Amino acid sequence: MTDALRTDMYQLTMMQAYWHSGHNPEATFDYFIRKTPAGSYLLTAGLTYLLDYIENLRFGEDDIEYLVTQGFNSDFLNSLRDFRFTGDILAIPEGNIVFPLEPIVRVTAPIIEAQLVETYLLNRMNFSTLIATKASRTVYAARGRAISEFGLRRAQGNAHLEATRATFIGGCTSTSNVLAGKELGIPISGTMAHSFVTSFEHEIDSFRAYADTFPKNCFLLIDTYDTVEGAKKAAVVGKELEQKGEKLMGVRLDSGDLCGLSKQVRKLLDDAGLPYVKIVASGDLNEWKIDEHMRNGAKIDFFGVGTELVTGRPTPALDGIYKLSDIVENGVHVPKMKLSEEALKTTLPGKKLVWRIFENGTFKKDIISLDDEEIEGAEPLLEPVVKHGRVVCDRLALPEIRNRTHENLSKLPDKYRKLDDAPVYPVEFSPGLKALKKKMVEKIKHEEIGLY
Amino acid sequence: MTDALRTDMYQLTMMQAYWHSGHNPEATFDYFIRKTPAGSYLLTAGLTYLLDYIENLRFGEDDIEYLVTQGFNSDFLNSLRDFRFTGDILAIPEGNIVFPLEPIVRVTAPIIEAQLVETYLLNRMNFSTLIATKASRTVYAARGRAISEFGLRRAQGNAHLEATRATFIGGCTSTSNVLAGKELGIPISGTMAHSFVTSFEHEIDSFRAYADTFPKNCFLLIDTYDTVEGAKKAAVVGKELEQKGEKLMGVRLDSGDLCGLSKQVRKLLDDAGLPYVKIVASGDLNEWKIDEHMRNGAKIDFFGVGTELVTGRPTPALDGIYKLSDIVENGVHVPKMKLSEEALKTTLPGKKLVWRIFENGTFKKDIISLDDEEIEGAEPLLEPVVKHGRVVCDRLALPEIRNRTHENLSKLPDKYRKLDDAPVYPVEFSPGLKALKKKMVEKIKHEEIGLY
Repeated sequence: MTDALRTDMYQLTMMQAYWHSGHNPEATFDYFIRKTPAGSYLLTAGLTYLLDYIENLRFGEDDIEYLVTQGFNSDFLNSLRDFRFTGDILAIPEGNIVFPLEPIVRVTAPIIEAQLVETYLLNRMNFSTLIATKASRTVYAARGRAISEFGLRRAQGNAHLEATRATFIGGCTSTSNVLAGKELGIPISGTMAHSFVTSFEHEIDSFRAYADTFPKNCFLLIDTYDTVEGAKKAAVVGKELEQKGEKLMGVRLDSGDLCGLSKQVRKLLDDAGLPYVKIVASGDLNEWKIDEHMRNGAKIDFFGVGTELVTGRPTPALDGIYKLSDIVENGVHVPKMKLSEEALKTTLPGKKLVWRIFENGTFKKDIISLDDEEIEGAEPLLEPVVKHGRVVCDRLALPEIRNRTHENLSKLPDKYRKLDDAPVYPVEFSPGLKALKKKMVEKIKHEEIGLY
Repeated sequence: MTDALRTDMYQLTMMQAYWHSGHNPEATFDYFIRKTPAGSYLLTAGLTYLLDYIENLRFGEDDIEYLVTQGFNSDFLNSLRDFRFTGDILAIPEGNIVFPLEPIVRVTAPIIEAQLVETYLLNRMNFSTLIATKASRTVYAARGRAISEFGLRRAQGNAHLEATRATFIGGCTSTSNVLAGKELGIPISGTMAHSFVTSFEHEIDSFRAYADTFPKNCFLLIDTYDTVEGAKKAAVVGKELEQKGEKLMGVRLDSGDLCGLSKQVRKLLDDAGLPYVKIVASGDLNEWKIDEHMRNGAKIDFFGVGTELVTGRPTPALDGIYKLSDIVENGVHVPKMKLSEEALKTTLPGKKLVWRIFENGTFKKDIISLDDEEIEGAEPLLEPVVKHGRVVCDRLALPEIRNRTHENLSKLPDKYRKLDDAPVYPVEFSPGLKALKKKMVEKIKHEEIGLY
């Protein structure tokens, strides 16, 4: 199965219409995100999938056969047998901080090729960027406490692996997802469920069985019947482990008032002479709840976060789009834009670049410019990743991408990391872009809407 | 790659602990959903994935090798080489209406086997049921207008195919996702994007090029610059098509006040002598917005729905869980339950069945009973789907499942279909279940919490 048909039907109908009309100019499209789901910034992720796709993009015989049944022109379908992506792509690599409206990927290719890749790009990059961003916010809220991702059971089906990858890029330290451990090398963690406890005659039997199996890595789930009573039994088993020269690693709370219970359990464990036993908390957590627990002095050493982290709840999709900005007609660049009554749906015309200005080693502001403008004292953010259809950039290992996230976030002034009511980070348009946008709006109003 | 490691780490640690303790009794687990994301009911979907998984569940050599690196006991890992699922499963098939707390799947197997399958079951069935339910609500809101699913670009990455499948089960008529057309046989649809329009010098050039390519199936996107001006140009192209003996199929609105614009565009097309041209609307739609448009008399013939439909926004995950209800110890059934301060987190003990009582051909109420109770005049909903590890039920084709949805929804009294404030459908506990639950709560309080 190739990925060529992992696209919207309209890409293929448009491709046939471009082909039929002999209208296949070089076109440039920008991938950008109109607004953040929460907070001021976005953490980029998912480019790796696009690069794999671009290099392997082919229509298989079975794809063509299926399209025949859908009424496409047979000469057009024949042309797809030799389809390759031959264009150039600039991108802001994974693990970078970006802001709304900034082109994250810029695709330049014959329009038939550039059009096809839209859907796949949006499908993969929107989701990974959504989850990486969410993860970075969750990690921030935990103020140095580790976050383990527990979301596989609530992940959207087959999205689970890319969700886990994005949470790791965003700063989570481990996952419950064993396949992500095997396939992506992410550290895995996990202990026991309520069913383990209830499967034994008494709760303490289950604790003893687990401690006997994993004397060196024993975490006990203590809320199956009553959290405080469970903690007392865990303390008994902790003392039994000490007699064998081992140490109970931790207990997990999974329901109830996690903050209040953590304080009760901490005191109970300390009073029992078990100050080294860690407390893990899980159960419908998100960045806001973790922030509240930390502000209230919760005695929690690690957090396990599932549903909201891997689905992006309450905003499970990014408002990321892919818009035509430039066409080459008879060797001349013709800027393009979409107009809309909804201001946010009006796009930025022309081939563009993104620049960042630093102050004392931290991000000060970004500038979106036209391709031929140079912004002095600023760093360009878009890098060449594909040339003539071949990937030309380094493919970093996952831990390196995660390090880049950490490095970038350390340069983002703290005020922009606030969970709510963060100020808007300044993203300016260059003089050239401002002038072009104004000219284009006038031209479209004149030629297409007849307002003059 | 096998799916055996598509599980939570704690399933494997618990399996080793069961193995190490020689504690591998026959166990029964229930999959059920604690509450609906919205509305009164849930539409089941996703069982097909579980059945495929059960039949093919094996640990590959590469899986074992990976687990060796994670510190598992080598004898335990050796035992996984011969791992097969050998148990029995009852389930309520896809395309059925169920309600909170009702067991949708009941797994009975040695606990080592029944424990492993939890994560995969939850991962696949939670998501498909979420989306099928959402789709059925969206279809209901459209009052007979067709809904096409346009969500691929906003779907959570690799979740796209199962999302599209679930929307079809829920009553959508087509999808933009070409791969879903090829792999699942779902009808596909699609026309043009804004980039097609902007790639031409003038909007009307793009309309003419498209009409020339697809004279028999031409839908024109009219909001690239200004919807009403776009409609005027579409009318021009519609008249040109008439001169060639063809008919413009439709126009699409994708932004702005869809209801108001649909009325303006309808009038404009009618006045131009094009009353047959259909109006398609898309753009951030959901069941509530569609309902509002229909109540306000929108002149919309089809809806295209993307983001919210395929992600379940604003509730992108179901609160579905898998809980131990029974263990066989020395040949005797020992019911099991989890207690919690949070009432919804307390589970129902014992092996159970689900029954439905009809009145005048419509659903009147459901009853959850113990396995050995017979509810007179009621239909049992759980069917045997796996026996001794082999799938024993018919595997219906997708259109048949979709028909079953339709048939079931036609038997659900309309008041339960309300988008908001639907009454709670009556789900009662049988006398036997009520008595067992009471007895178990007393027992646990006495033995585990020491309240007596």
